[in-house]
Amino acid sequence: MHYLKSKITFAASHQLVNQDWDTEKNRQVYGKCSNRHGHNYTVEVTVKGPCDPVTGMVLNFTQLKHLLKEIIYSQVDHKDLNQDVPFLTNVPPTAENLACVFWNLLKVHMPENIALHEIMVQESEKNTVYYHE
Amino acid sequence: MHYLKSKITFAASHQLVNQDWDTEKNRQVYGKCSNRHGHNYTVEVTVKGPCDPVTGMVLNFTQLKHLLKEIIYSQVDHKDLNQDVPFLTNVPPTAENLACVFWNLLKVHMPENIALHEIMVQESEKNTVYYHE
Amino acid sequence: MHYLKSKITFAASHQLVNQDWDTEKNRQVYGKCSNRHGHNYTVEVTVKGPCDPVTGMVLNFTQLKHLLKEIIYSQVDHKDLNQDVPFLTNVPPTAENLACVFWNLLKVHMPENIALHEIMVQESEKNTVYYHE
Amino acid sequence: MHYLKSKITFAASHQLVNQDWDTEKNRQVYGKCSNRHGHNYTVEVTVKGPCDPVTGMVLNFTQLKHLLKEIIYSQVDHKDLNQDVPFLTNVPPTAENLACVFWNLLKVHMPENIALHEIMVQESEKNTVYYHE
Amino acid sequence: MHYLKSKITFAASHQLVNQDWDTEKNRQVYGKCSNRHGHNYTVEVTVKGPCDPVTGMVLNFTQLKHLLKEIIYSQVDHKDLNQDVPFLTNVPPTAENLACVFWNLLKVHMPENIALHEIMVQESEKNTVYYHE
Amino acid sequence: MHYLKSKITFAASHQLVNQDWDTEKNRQVYGKCSNRHGHNYTVEVTVKGPCDPVTGMVLNFTQLKHLLKEIIYSQVDHKDLNQDVPFLTNVPPTAENLACVFWNLLKVHMPENIALHEIMVQESEKNTVYYHE
Repeated sequence: MHYLKSKITFAASHQLVNQDWDTEKNRQVYGKCSNRHGHNYTVEVTVKGPCDPVTGMVLNFTQLKHLLKEIIYSQVDHKDLNQDVPFLTNVPPTAENLACVFWNLLKVHMPENIALHEIMVQESEKNTVYYHE
Repeated sequence: MHYLKSKITFAASHQLVNQDWDTEKNRQVYGKCSNRHGHNYTVEVTVKGPCDPVTGMVLNFTQLKHLLKEIIYSQVDHKDLNQDVPFLTNVPPTAENLACVFWNLLKVHMPENIALHEIMVQESEKNTVYYHE
Repeated sequence: MHYLKSKITFAASHQLVNQDWDTEKNRQVYGKCSNRHGHNYTVEVTVKGPCDPVTGMVLNFTQLKHLLKEIIYSQVDHKDLNQDVPFLTNVPPTAENLACVFWNLLKVHMPENIALHEIMVQESEKNTVYYHE
Repeated sequence: MHYLKSKITFAASHQLVNQDWDTEKNRQVYGKCSNRHGHNYTVEVTVKGPCDPVTGMVLNFTQLKHLLKEIIYSQVDHKDLNQDVPFLTNVPPTAENLACVFWNLLKVHMPENIALHEIMVQESEKNTVYYHE
Repeated sequence: MHYLKSKITFAASHQLVNQDWDTEKNRQVYGKCSNRHGHNYTVEVTVKGPCDPVTGMVLNFTQLKHLLKEIIYSQVDHKDLNQDVPFLTNVPPTAENLACVFWNLLKVHMPENIALHEIMVQESEKNTVYYHE
Repeated sequence: MHYLKSKITFAASHQLVNQDWDTEKNRQVYGKCSNRHGHNYTVEVTVKGPCDPVTGMVLNFTQLKHLLKEIIYSQVDHKDLNQDVPFLTNVPPTAENLACVFWNLLKVHMPENIALHEIMVQESEKNTVYYHE
């Protein structure tokens, strides 16, 4: 079995807040992440599938990159994740929630014979989240 | 002559706007950077000075890091550069302006015999600004 | 299921020796690693757990980093692994043994609902060890 | 269980073509990869095995590196993958096929008690392939 | 004075040969680089100029990137440097020559008030060439 | 003018001590660096010279790497800088002193027409020293 991993990066701002809580409670739970700030996010998407013996490819990397660009990058790059992104309304934009939301968006666009395997979301070099069903 | 370079990173949000312009003009000049978004910024500060023959050091790296933490990091990390940072009021928070402002802040705190040599500000792996007087 | 990975680095010296062997035998088995030398070690710890729908987090990254700092970093950074670290007495400080020892130390401190998933120890960019039970 | 990962890099040229197709068909399937071009390839090989309690090692990293150098690096570094590499004749040199071919070559040389676990082939920082049986 | 540095990468094949020499002489001078092989090249271009106090920018990074894409990337990416690149005909495609040729191509396209400062060409992480007039 | 930069890494242990001082004074000046510990050091050496129009090279990178391997790497890799390295006797092995010592060792071995331009010594990603005469 082959696995293909493609990587995109995007720049976005966010702040971690639960809208049912006041400022003090949000600061207590999220610390300085309750301030508005931002990141260069890295997202790595891994898919798996059989290798076509004629082309020697599971999937053309160009096609995979195109998918990530259309479905993720175009909606979040140079945006504020709390205010500008419809599919993040009512969800604290933590790395955990981003990974889960990206999974659901990508899953329905997988080409035939290809399965989504894992999504990684990295806010900074030291903090990384992985998600799979 | 020896040169010492120390590196800090911080996470912040910003948007490039000149407050004298309307939204359309700002978008025309700054493109998608006129949207609110954010970055993991990298700042590298280079100082120069003579090497003390007794200690074998120009300056203790711990002292240099402490300076960067106090004067830069503590004021910009997990902040919005347009709204939360007093010394950036009325200045579009471009990498060029950040480099210049950090230079002026650090310059007056250089220890004896040590001169500020260069400041690098990097918004993303592909875009870097250097500044020196 | 979500997985969180956090990363620390530390600087330490070590030499690979089995105390039951003489110098020649140690050199034969461990090569130049039987000399005293040192590394910037990288340790990545992956934990897994359910995502709390209210906070959108599995675990606060700050809490995870605090754990790694207390239990690993504080005991090995700027130390000699052969002489200064109680839990490495009588164990050749190979990357394999470090991974295993760090696993046992961390495992008993996992917060409720969180399981330790994997530990990576890297002595250099080219040599990496992973461990899980 | 311990896993050891070692990394090599090599520089090679290739072009993606299926010899049964004409130029136009190759360009349609492989895009600009049907032109002759080249890469700095990164290959990471992960093996697994028990840790010898006497040496504290699964396998000496020097031995693993030697294996990768002999079996992979010496045959592909500073080569043209389409013309100079016997085991790639009649196979389009995609990352998927490289991973598979390297697996088969390495598998028969694993030391006692050591199993090949995974092979990663990376053509560029953004495109990665993993393979295991 | 401000300096801006932008970075592009491209994938190309090449072989180091002086067409006036036979195979043996080329191998003696260029070693294994006389074989056809390839690289992921990194090019960093540094320009300098005054910072416009109204925009807070020396030059829009988007404009600089566009220039590098048009003048360098579009002519060398996924190409064979010996055969497919008109401005490299009759020049051994060493990193030194690439840096020099890119300098001459870019220099005449500098925007008003902006001077080309330095060009870096990197064939691999360990081998780097810098050029300026 | 062309500049060539080559990079080596080595693993060594050291502790910062001035032998004229007692433990307490050493700890006061050098902090935790007065403990024995270690690093993966990175050394980058930049030379400059004219580009030979026939070969298109300033210097063969293989020759430059060979020089660094012979003169630096072979003497410090997998060593203790305080005890095993003749040219560091009586010198606290700070990054500043390493840069200076490496400069003096390399300078006398420069090939004809080639001048040593700069030496960088990096103990960790965040702390870097540059030296030139």
